[in-house]
Amino acid sequence: MISLIGLDGDDTLWHSESHFVTTEESLAALLAPYANGHDLRARMIEAERRNLRLFGYGVKGFTLSMIETAIEVSDAAVPASVIQDIIEHGKALLDHPVELLDGVEEVVGELAHEHRLVIITKGDLFHQEAKVASSGLSELVAGVEIVAEKDHATYERVLDRYGVRPDEMLMVGNSVKSDILPVIELGGYAAHIPYHVTWELEKMEPPDLEHPRFWALGSIAELPDLVASLTATP
Amino acid sequence: MISLIGLDGDDTLWHSESHFVTTEESLAALLAPYANGHDLRARMIEAERRNLRLFGYGVKGFTLSMIETAIEVSDAAVPASVIQDIIEHGKALLDHPVELLDGVEEVVGELAHEHRLVIITKGDLFHQEAKVASSGLSELVAGVEIVAEKDHATYERVLDRYGVRPDEMLMVGNSVKSDILPVIELGGYAAHIPYHVTWELEKMEPPDLEHPRFWALGSIAELPDLVASLTATP
Repeated sequence: MISLIGLDGDDTLWHSESHFVTTEESLAALLAPYANGHDLRARMIEAERRNLRLFGYGVKGFTLSMIETAIEVSDAAVPASVIQDIIEHGKALLDHPVELLDGVEEVVGELAHEHRLVIITKGDLFHQEAKVASSGLSELVAGVEIVAEKDHATYERVLDRYGVRPDEMLMVGNSVKSDILPVIELGGYAAHIPYHVTWELEKMEPPDLEHPRFWALGSIAELPDLVASLTATP
Repeated sequence: MISLIGLDGDDTLWHSESHFVTTEESLAALLAPYANGHDLRARMIEAERRNLRLFGYGVKGFTLSMIETAIEVSDAAVPASVIQDIIEHGKALLDHPVELLDGVEEVVGELAHEHRLVIITKGDLFHQEAKVASSGLSELVAGVEIVAEKDHATYERVLDRYGVRPDEMLMVGNSVKSDILPVIELGGYAAHIPYHVTWELEKMEPPDLEHPRFWALGSIAELPDLVASLTATP
């Protein structure tokens, strides 16, 4: 019996990665005169991967990685005014209004009547709190867990905090790596709802579709039926 | 009766602000050829204050504010190589080993025998988790709360989570603004242990020393006696 439904934030409840993609396109335009033939996108991914150990997830680390990449691909010739433009793009990302995905408001509102929901999201604490607050969803959920990483230890901490066993939890999210696999591995249930773009560092194959505790949904509109089937008395 | 003791992290359990001060001195040296007579320290504080709304607390925002300040005081003449040096200083801050303050290990170890302790610390989630993990203190505390801001709402959430009333909590920290005043205002107890430097944006006068729920301690070594006096049966 499912007694806790975990909902990922970025790219599951609200748009996020698409804004990062737009920002990277602006970065490419800004750096076009300086890029010296380097593959900007590959260098950016490489910077993000290298810096993950120190920066973790979120816009501030992304902005610092953009600056590093600009310096790198320009062989340190990029002018300070362009660096300032990059910082402004980072600030615009932080200041971007929250846009819920289609159907989220209705589905979360509906599920909240009968189920305990918790938003489990990773990234900058300050920014994620601001996004949750302006999403209008906080009143509908039992809790908000902003975490530095979505791994076994994190999910075990959340399960413990809400007093549920792994097989009483359904996690819903767009990232196979962060939202699906660790929960399945712990013995929980997981529903994957893909977003139209996936950050390179989150890319991973979904589990076998035949796995008995895994579902691939087309959109969040399919979630209430899945939840109903999981919580129906036999 | 005190049933929860909150311990601030940065500058209460481990050194932090002193490393920021050292980094700002390095920034001053880096920018000496470009500073054009601007008051670097004043401009840096102004940048941090302006950016707080978007960046929140922590090293990554601090690093972005250093870069902005460098661009500003040099009238955008600072070379990209110096910006890269600033990023390296930010990374060194993130990678700096945790150094516990004198007496912390003994006092926390002693208090943990008979009291429920919780570390309440603000800043970058990822960095604070790394600091708590390498502090060696996590095994001694009942919980770690990494928060985006230390205000009434945050302390109320923590009290609720641990199931204690405000007058059952003692908060211990170096920041009057973040660790002392909000807790006193909620009806809790607070002990101030000053650190030898205070970040400009945290500076605030301590409460009247005659306040019945406030104590000013010289160092954490005085904490066990205070706790004993607060928890002694009359």
